[in-house]
Amino acid sequence: MTLETVSENRSFGGIQGVYRHKSQATGTDMTFAVYLPPDTQAGKVPVLWYLSGLTCTHENAMTKAGAQQFAAEAGIALVFPDTSPRGEGVADDDAYDLGQGAGFYVNATQNPWSPHFRMWDYIVEELPALVCDNFPVDAQAQGITGHSMGGHGALTIAMTHPDRYRSVSAFAPIANPTESDWGRKQLGAYLGEDRAAWQAHDSTLLMAERGYPGEVLIDQGASDQFLDLLKPETLAQAMMARRQPGWFRMQPGYDHSYFFVNSFIGDHVFWHAERLA
Amino acid sequence: MTLETVSENRSFGGIQGVYRHKSQATGTDMTFAVYLPPDTQAGKVPVLWYLSGLTCTHENAMTKAGAQQFAAEAGIALVFPDTSPRGEGVADDDAYDLGQGAGFYVNATQNPWSPHFRMWDYIVEELPALVCDNFPVDAQAQGITGHSMGGHGALTIAMTHPDRYRSVSAFAPIANPTESDWGRKQLGAYLGEDRAAWQAHDSTLLMAERGYPGEVLIDQGASDQFLDLLKPETLAQAMMARRQPGWFRMQPGYDHSYFFVNSFIGDHVFWHAERLA
Repeated sequence: MTLETVSENRSFGGIQGVYRHKSQATGTDMTFAVYLPPDTQAGKVPVLWYLSGLTCTHENAMTKAGAQQFAAEAGIALVFPDTSPRGEGVADDDAYDLGQGAGFYVNATQNPWSPHFRMWDYIVEELPALVCDNFPVDAQAQGITGHSMGGHGALTIAMTHPDRYRSVSAFAPIANPTESDWGRKQLGAYLGEDRAAWQAHDSTLLMAERGYPGEVLIDQGASDQFLDLLKPETLAQAMMARRQPGWFRMQPGYDHSYFFVNSFIGDHVFWHAERLA
Repeated sequence: MTLETVSENRSFGGIQGVYRHKSQATGTDMTFAVYLPPDTQAGKVPVLWYLSGLTCTHENAMTKAGAQQFAAEAGIALVFPDTSPRGEGVADDDAYDLGQGAGFYVNATQNPWSPHFRMWDYIVEELPALVCDNFPVDAQAQGITGHSMGGHGALTIAMTHPDRYRSVSAFAPIANPTESDWGRKQLGAYLGEDRAAWQAHDSTLLMAERGYPGEVLIDQGASDQFLDLLKPETLAQAMMARRQPGWFRMQPGYDHSYFFVNSFIGDHVFWHAERLA
């Protein structure tokens, strides 16, 4: 597997790198970012996956979330994947919330998306293998988080593969996409109109059905401009109804932006580091 | 107003006192406990009310919650009231969850309870005036918390009088008593069968209707043996649906006992101290 180094920068005593590779899952070149803390000089470290939201690439959270300072202190690596396949020959849509930049962390089964939009396999299978082979990270100590569409991805992936992700959290996740305009449109386009296929990609439904064996941390801004699309109350109800260990925090005054993520990323990094130690 | 000192003990550099007075609200002698931190030597301090659960007196939380060490550090006073009127001539029931030890923080309107069971007025009006007159506490800096039936009391009182209680939290509150066997029986006995009178004493309904102007902290043990009676999921849903600022934490492995309260009382004391400073 050839890994091209796009850039590497010193950051809080560690290295913030950006890399490109040819993905088997998506059939395209894919770019991702890895932060390695100073502790990697002594051996493998735990790794936290950060899945981004609609319109984002690997770059948004890398440059705006402010996670590196905490990852350096906690001694864990960070991975920031892209949110979809991209480029010429890859299907797209004029809307910001479908197609490129909006992969929704599913394997598309419908045309024109199915040839490249296989973000579930990419995030869950291909990229972890690549990262663990090429960087000093411990495959047995992986956690996952994300923002908005990425929070949806983190929660659905962790509940589906709790053996692989030993910790999970989310920032303002799209919590109930089968009942939201952020979800029905995308799940319908990528997976078709048979709603049975959607169930595996709805955090509220997965929470009600199976939950997560560890503690779950959710942060949501109370002034988020997209609350009606995110539907935090359905996830909170499902969590507490099944007595899911974890914290659901409604943070007053915060909106949906990276200023919100930035304000609580330290809590999340330490939350994961504690559980991956 | 005559205040009889039952006992005073040095505790973490402050004083843990127990006092008795003749209550106008209940028409009985009432006993309560006050912890004053060392900071009261320099002037008035904020005060946190701790309302106890079924079967408790002023004594249970005073001796088992372990709050004094944190109150001393945070510089806030604690008050532990009793949970009902008591004594000969006061109505009672053979059940542990009705009558003496089970006042439910309401003003009873029904016989045989109405002559003495006026715990709402006692907790909200009479005792605060008495405490603020007789101890170095700041009437403008009051917070309220409680456990189980006391969590129910704390939440309903704070949502009804947010001007008076500038911070609120709860441990395993009886969250939806109008829909629980911990609630329907007591509200029916004390308030009568007209459910309209019950609405003012249900945290989930008050949360849906009005909420609280500050942040709300709820801790609930995931292994609580009374979860089906407490109904945390209905309160969590109501909180997140109205975007109520606050934290709802489902704490894995904890049950309904004081070992649970004890484990998180520090978080709660500092939560209140920060908001009452």
